[in-house]
Amino acid sequence: MRSDDALPVELPDMVREALLAPLVDHHCHGVRRDDLTRGGFEMLLTQAGTPAPPGTTHFDTPAGAAVRRWCAPVLDLDPHAPPAVYLARRAELGAAEVNRRLLGEAGIVTFLVDGGSGGPELLSAAEMGHAGGAAAEEIIMIEQVEREVARTAASGVSYISDLTQHLAGRAAQAAGLTSAVAYRHGLGRDPARPSRGSVIAAATRRLAEPAERLTDPVLLRHLLWTAVDVARERNRPLRFHVGYGDPDLDPHGGDPALMVGFLRAVQPIGVPVVLLHCYPFHRQAAYLAGVFPHVYVDVGLALSCTAVGSAAIMGELLELVPFHKQLFGSGSHGVAESCLLGALYHRRSLARALALRLAADEWSAQDAARVAHMIGSGNARRVYRL
Amino acid sequence: MRSDDALPVELPDMVREALLAPLVDHHCHGVRRDDLTRGGFEMLLTQAGTPAPPGTTHFDTPAGAAVRRWCAPVLDLDPHAPPAVYLARRAELGAAEVNRRLLGEAGIVTFLVDGGSGGPELLSAAEMGHAGGAAAEEIIMIEQVEREVARTAASGVSYISDLTQHLAGRAAQAAGLTSAVAYRHGLGRDPARPSRGSVIAAATRRLAEPAERLTDPVLLRHLLWTAVDVARERNRPLRFHVGYGDPDLDPHGGDPALMVGFLRAVQPIGVPVVLLHCYPFHRQAAYLAGVFPHVYVDVGLALSCTAVGSAAIMGELLELVPFHKQLFGSGSHGVAESCLLGALYHRRSLARALALRLAADEWSAQDAARVAHMIGSGNARRVYRL
Amino acid sequence: MRSDDALPVELPDMVREALLAPLVDHHCHGVRRDDLTRGGFEMLLTQAGTPAPPGTTHFDTPAGAAVRRWCAPVLDLDPHAPPAVYLARRAELGAAEVNRRLLGEAGIVTFLVDGGSGGPELLSAAEMGHAGGAAAEEIIMIEQVEREVARTAASGVSYISDLTQHLAGRAAQAAGLTSAVAYRHGLGRDPARPSRGSVIAAATRRLAEPAERLTDPVLLRHLLWTAVDVARERNRPLRFHVGYGDPDLDPHGGDPALMVGFLRAVQPIGVPVVLLHCYPFHRQAAYLAGVFPHVYVDVGLALSCTAVGSAAIMGELLELVPFHKQLFGSGSHGVAESCLLGALYHRRSLARALALRLAADEWSAQDAARVAHMIGSGNARRVYRL
Repeated sequence: MRSDDALPVELPDMVREALLAPLVDHHCHGVRRDDLTRGGFEMLLTQAGTPAPPGTTHFDTPAGAAVRRWCAPVLDLDPHAPPAVYLARRAELGAAEVNRRLLGEAGIVTFLVDGGSGGPELLSAAEMGHAGGAAAEEIIMIEQVEREVARTAASGVSYISDLTQHLAGRAAQAAGLTSAVAYRHGLGRDPARPSRGSVIAAATRRLAEPAERLTDPVLLRHLLWTAVDVARERNRPLRFHVGYGDPDLDPHGGDPALMVGFLRAVQPIGVPVVLLHCYPFHRQAAYLAGVFPHVYVDVGLALSCTAVGSAAIMGELLELVPFHKQLFGSGSHGVAESCLLGALYHRRSLARALALRLAADEWSAQDAARVAHMIGSGNARRVYRL
Repeated sequence: MRSDDALPVELPDMVREALLAPLVDHHCHGVRRDDLTRGGFEMLLTQAGTPAPPGTTHFDTPAGAAVRRWCAPVLDLDPHAPPAVYLARRAELGAAEVNRRLLGEAGIVTFLVDGGSGGPELLSAAEMGHAGGAAAEEIIMIEQVEREVARTAASGVSYISDLTQHLAGRAAQAAGLTSAVAYRHGLGRDPARPSRGSVIAAATRRLAEPAERLTDPVLLRHLLWTAVDVARERNRPLRFHVGYGDPDLDPHGGDPALMVGFLRAVQPIGVPVVLLHCYPFHRQAAYLAGVFPHVYVDVGLALSCTAVGSAAIMGELLELVPFHKQLFGSGSHGVAESCLLGALYHRRSLARALALRLAADEWSAQDAARVAHMIGSGNARRVYRL
Repeated sequence: MRSDDALPVELPDMVREALLAPLVDHHCHGVRRDDLTRGGFEMLLTQAGTPAPPGTTHFDTPAGAAVRRWCAPVLDLDPHAPPAVYLARRAELGAAEVNRRLLGEAGIVTFLVDGGSGGPELLSAAEMGHAGGAAAEEIIMIEQVEREVARTAASGVSYISDLTQHLAGRAAQAAGLTSAVAYRHGLGRDPARPSRGSVIAAATRRLAEPAERLTDPVLLRHLLWTAVDVARERNRPLRFHVGYGDPDLDPHGGDPALMVGFLRAVQPIGVPVVLLHCYPFHRQAAYLAGVFPHVYVDVGLALSCTAVGSAAIMGELLELVPFHKQLFGSGSHGVAESCLLGALYHRRSLARALALRLAADEWSAQDAARVAHMIGSGNARRVYRL
């Protein structure tokens, strides 16, 4: 996959080499270590929260077609293998070998792996690196740390200090912090840091009835601002899942443009903010990355989910995004296929965008190669201080 | 039009045949039976609610250019005939012959025709089928049924039973139900089923002052949930006009992502929900169709209104939509031109999308042909149990 | 730049000539008359409000790449000249010569120049025309006139008459009026004309504490409706900056679809309303231009900011916009590069759109040439009565 086959267009040597160079995947999740049933695999293939309706299959999606086309040969099958054949071969090889092949084929030099509540059946950051023949660092999910603190804090007052301490402790070993606040409460809320009194009151309520998910707006804001403080101290980026995702979020509330108040408030602090996924609000995200010096962006899971359609999305992101603000992240999760496809469609869609610019006599080959390196790895190295 | 001329790209035989195969038009309205003045024709050609400004014409739109290019030859004129020539020939042939030619040329095997308040100058479902040489079934506009009930119910209590009875009675002869609630009150409202008491109170007010349009939020919700009950009993889909439409709707409120609360509430009931038109929120609609097992989507009127631009829209829909969730619907209304153009641009835009996938070595020809059949007719047959 | 080099595709002679014909730039701002530092130039190159982060440059943007490609040769440099070389040559030639070359090369016959608070370092309308070898007329920024009135009015009562008088006086010498209300308070506000009493009360407060920026919703509405009255009397268009712009606006509030209440209220008055920039809401703007007889649209600054990406934006605008409703406006400001690039990417992106229609046998060459003339200058001449 790191060969020329991966690129759908003719390109000058230096541009081709820049596109095929090892990537830093700054945004992925662990993949499953266990063998999967067809139902289990289908559920991880897309964002759907339920099996496909009777008589249909989640393989009949852009991602499903891409798995059959691009992942089948990595498992020694013909391209376009039927779903049943693909899954039989996957079972025959076993999850460990499948993960090793697919992650290795992705051509990634460093994984930054979002921790989270995935459970023991997901590969850890270190295991992802081992399977993929790459370096790996962890990213902290701040909502997960908050849940631990909510379960163990002795009082509303100690909740505050425990949260700071736990976040700082975890961040000391991590490359950055991620929030999923868009999945809880939307992005357009009051961006201000809440008062200590209001946090203690809300934390006391939370400890009395520790819910699984944090939904209290005061505590969510407090969590965000504590994460900002920790990120500043550690010189680490703070990242946000925005745009589309699981069916239990509010898709209308995922527009990162709603975050503008929070972004303005964070700007003087200097903490880099990375907007993840963003689709279908990637133009909005590119604008934010253009006008705010501390905002960065990827299209994450949109690469593997839209597959052949990712060329248009990459094109739209490149309409406005500064080239030093875009990162490659596969957004992969659950199955190694999503990591390989993320890397593949990053290369394919960027190859198309660059070929178009070269054919139209808009860019030089030197610039095209330089931008491919920046987006593929250079920007991530700078922002994460790798 | 069902010949190769309709397809703008080279394709393998099996894919070409799949694209040219008869379509199920799951979503259209009756066309006018009477001869039209130039002013009348222009007003039906676009969504504009008024004549074009002095010195301009609604023919200077994507749809107008498409009528001159593609419909003119069906009336024995050269392509690109001037508007005056086109309309003179249209008058010469007469509406019946024009409808017969244009609907027949669309290559449609079954029309599902939205009833509604179009009045006697529109062809009925049966007449549409007769003119187009196709089968035809009716779809019920639930707001129209409500208006009849509001005019005749004896009391707020009988309004409830009358509504259920009338909807069930009409649905027994129909293929599905359609709501235009987006045109009345936006889509983002409280999705819950209202209490019987609140419905009786609101219905009593409505009977005392029977307005032409239902705007009461309690009664709108009651109407929707009554339609859900009837659809479940009859195993029929419930459809929603979303996205852009007439100038009297709130374009900001047409985003189907706003319906997510209602979609979640309907999900356990199992009634298929079809999102119609969707433009420019078709990516949002594709996402909803991807994450909810009961949600389906078409781009309807966007096909004929954007004409040559529909290729990009089809491409964007295909970024994320499961192939078993997309339907062909012309969304046509008023003039048979919109039906022919809807079918034509469905075929042309899908042909481009498939050709791109084949040229990039992304899909097999077998898969391309299979998906063309699914979207063109197979999915509609399954969802509507035709 | 007005030669064939500017067009990226083969086109029939008449279409090429129509695209290369002189443009009316209905929407631009003055450019700086003074020589600029690298920092100063970079800040004017994009919408960013701050310098690029350490180790990066605003030249690494679509606009920056376009300056190096297209403006460098106008300053006698090779295409793709490095930023430092470009800026050194710019300094060597001096701002006057640079402005003369770049504005002249844009191929513009008439500039309509937004006045505003740019200050004395910006060229006036007359100076823009002189530098570019073109005619020039002024457009009034209504918020600027209001600020003058707020500083000088003797009372809340005289504020009302002064505002009418000043706007009318300025409008007598101008081609139109522009509002930046989207930058102050969003577009979705109550569209009704406020009562005289409420205006007097609010104006009295404003005079007591004359803030730099008008944010009072009653006075903003009063200003808009006074502008509507003046525009009607003078037969001039009223224009609105919508979509993205400076980092201090609310990007979520820039969707022109939010203006639908105001647009409906203005419709019977007959004043043309022009939506400026619009990106990334240009599809929404095209819809509004399609359904409302008095609404017009450009993509302004999106042309030079997205550069090579503007082809997709032009394509999306053309999906739905009536051809008699689209105007060319460079949206340029600050540096003459943005004017040249606006004109260049208007021609290049429209060339691609027309070539696609001709290659697909959708449009005749005659229609393509006619539409190029309409959008490039004809519509502006009609709407502004030039």
